[in-house]
Amino acid sequence: MYDVEKIRADFPILSRQVNGTDLVYLDSGASAQKPQAVIDTVTEAYAQRYANVHRGLHFLSNDATERFEAVRGKVARFLGARHEDEILFTSNGSEGFNLVSYGWAAPRIEPGDEIILSVMEHHANIVPWHFLRERQGAVLKWLETDARGEIDLDKLADAITPRTRLVAISHMSNVLGTVNPAKRIVEIAHARGVPVLLDGCQAAVHMPVDVADLDVDFYVITGHKLYGPSGSGAVYIRRERQAEMRPFMGGGDMIREVTREGITYNDPPHKFEAGTPNIVQVIGFGAAIDYVSAIGMENIAAHEHDLRDYAQARLSGLNWLQIHGNSATKGAIFSFSMEGGAHPHDISTVIDRKGIAVRAGHHCCQPLMAHLGVTATARASFGLYNTRAEVDRLVEALEFCHELFG
Amino acid sequence: MYDVEKIRADFPILSRQVNGTDLVYLDSGASAQKPQAVIDTVTEAYAQRYANVHRGLHFLSNDATERFEAVRGKVARFLGARHEDEILFTSNGSEGFNLVSYGWAAPRIEPGDEIILSVMEHHANIVPWHFLRERQGAVLKWLETDARGEIDLDKLADAITPRTRLVAISHMSNVLGTVNPAKRIVEIAHARGVPVLLDGCQAAVHMPVDVADLDVDFYVITGHKLYGPSGSGAVYIRRERQAEMRPFMGGGDMIREVTREGITYNDPPHKFEAGTPNIVQVIGFGAAIDYVSAIGMENIAAHEHDLRDYAQARLSGLNWLQIHGNSATKGAIFSFSMEGGAHPHDISTVIDRKGIAVRAGHHCCQPLMAHLGVTATARASFGLYNTRAEVDRLVEALEFCHELFG
Repeated sequence: MYDVEKIRADFPILSRQVNGTDLVYLDSGASAQKPQAVIDTVTEAYAQRYANVHRGLHFLSNDATERFEAVRGKVARFLGARHEDEILFTSNGSEGFNLVSYGWAAPRIEPGDEIILSVMEHHANIVPWHFLRERQGAVLKWLETDARGEIDLDKLADAITPRTRLVAISHMSNVLGTVNPAKRIVEIAHARGVPVLLDGCQAAVHMPVDVADLDVDFYVITGHKLYGPSGSGAVYIRRERQAEMRPFMGGGDMIREVTREGITYNDPPHKFEAGTPNIVQVIGFGAAIDYVSAIGMENIAAHEHDLRDYAQARLSGLNWLQIHGNSATKGAIFSFSMEGGAHPHDISTVIDRKGIAVRAGHHCCQPLMAHLGVTATARASFGLYNTRAEVDRLVEALEFCHELFG
Repeated sequence: MYDVEKIRADFPILSRQVNGTDLVYLDSGASAQKPQAVIDTVTEAYAQRYANVHRGLHFLSNDATERFEAVRGKVARFLGARHEDEILFTSNGSEGFNLVSYGWAAPRIEPGDEIILSVMEHHANIVPWHFLRERQGAVLKWLETDARGEIDLDKLADAITPRTRLVAISHMSNVLGTVNPAKRIVEIAHARGVPVLLDGCQAAVHMPVDVADLDVDFYVITGHKLYGPSGSGAVYIRRERQAEMRPFMGGGDMIREVTREGITYNDPPHKFEAGTPNIVQVIGFGAAIDYVSAIGMENIAAHEHDLRDYAQARLSGLNWLQIHGNSATKGAIFSFSMEGGAHPHDISTVIDRKGIAVRAGHHCCQPLMAHLGVTATARASFGLYNTRAEVDRLVEALEFCHELFG
């Protein structure tokens, strides 16, 4: 039995008031709130158990190193990776994409080589590939989405040519909520010898993920959307792809030997992690994974599907509201516009006065905005702590806003 | 009046026991402990005031954005930068060097172009330049240190040629403690038209720094050594150099517009900061800067000079101990070996049983180790909270270790 009130009590910020009323936080797609277990882990790590990790030989350093490295295994199990060393820590999702772009793609891209994206990609999964276009002559090819917000897989098969070096696609859209058929995407690409990167920054928050079953090459996640600290993140990179990579950032920890004349590198995963890592953030990320794992990703998915269905029903009743994306696979993310009414920025500002936090803007998805024919949307994104009552508060606030601008 | 006991009470970890005795933490050079003010700021940021920053329009997002961006001004004032937008946030020191290497140096390095380093550099200020050697044919030139651990500045002038593109030197050595004559280094290089990067990861912790007075081009610092959270850091890059840079990491926030065909970039500093930043770490870094600024960097420097003099006197009394580096400019960092006695790893392990945390190893300075003719040293590095009594505890423990291995 999913006890959402008990879960809410774990998140101190959800008890606070905003603008004189109870906070309704519907911006988890931008960044999720943190349970007390994560906050306590962070606090204790600084107050009682802090030191730099790796190569230290004293008590605090050994303790921090053990706790830090244990998180690699937690993330590996959480994502279904076969080997812990396939997990590389990053500061955020963007660093994950850049690690793959600079470390794996850049050394092998020749002018005219192709990278296939979809129009629903987040800028984090676009800009690093535009760099390769600008700097090395890569060609970006774009898969469209249909009216429901789904990618046509036949088009993927057609788009792949002998020049295709990578398919890089979102597992779950941060705007439309669409969950893309990741396993089928990998099958189609692998059948043609093309590696696949999946942007799992949203998907890993809302559903169980198994990278071994997906057979994917690169899987990017970020900790701050997964109820973990800001400054935490990870990329799964399968061993075969790691073996093809050169280091991205240089510094301490990633080397074996440095002389005036040259360098040899440490073994993976350390080869790809330079300098003092985000020690406490990684340890806190581990606490976040423990937290969601104890609830169960299947249970979280079921709760959020209920919220999605309820929100879908209630928002559909507002005939002046246009919802972008209605795939059957959709998660609990709703982007919307008021037809002929308030600008998304006005919607966000007005309903904020009622304590409702939603995001407005292009959501780092300008190609998708262009595809939808808008410059911005408002977006309510739900997490494991949201409730039907909060959907009602949202609807009420939107009705108020509609009257104001009507 | 510097009240070190009052300061110690601000650091909860300093009250804890390790291996059954009071902790003596002499590993601040690897990473410093955190005052309660920083821990409380981090805790509150997660528990009551958390949201993603930039482009949010709701209350929590505006609040977090204001607090996050206010730290840019704090760091600018702390370093004496003329403009806030000359401060770029990073996750750690290494990312700072890589940002300069990938963003500024890589696009302008031709085969045969030279970068001048010193043998006392940390790997973070070596490996990114070795990348440019490996990948683009750059030539690394090395300045030696003399027996005291100082760089001969005449050699710097001699080393600069028309092919020299950058001088990258530590402001303060993390092994020898030497404070290099940064202003003079910049004068010499600038007189020959060569920009200068200073590694300030140690210096900014132990003394007042004024980048405008130094007239330096790039100044790298890291937050976790400066009593701030892990995962925080910054680089000062003067506007003229920023104007010459291309973006390093691609993602959200650093763009103005993304289309299928191309990208335009955001204005600095955002152009150089991709994705969700280390929000809470930056906010906590601000609290750390407030904390040390309230004590006063001059006062911290005076306290640490007293510790240095006391430690120098006491350690010099151990005639079986070899101290590496005795420049008159030296800060409170002591690297040492036991002649014919215990290996540095053994020293660290043995004195850890007495509650003394020191580091042993190459300290990410293998070229310097080779120059000193060792593979490793033990290192006691002091911070604003250390005391003469802790120096005595260190000496006592070293005597015990010497007897054990004698």
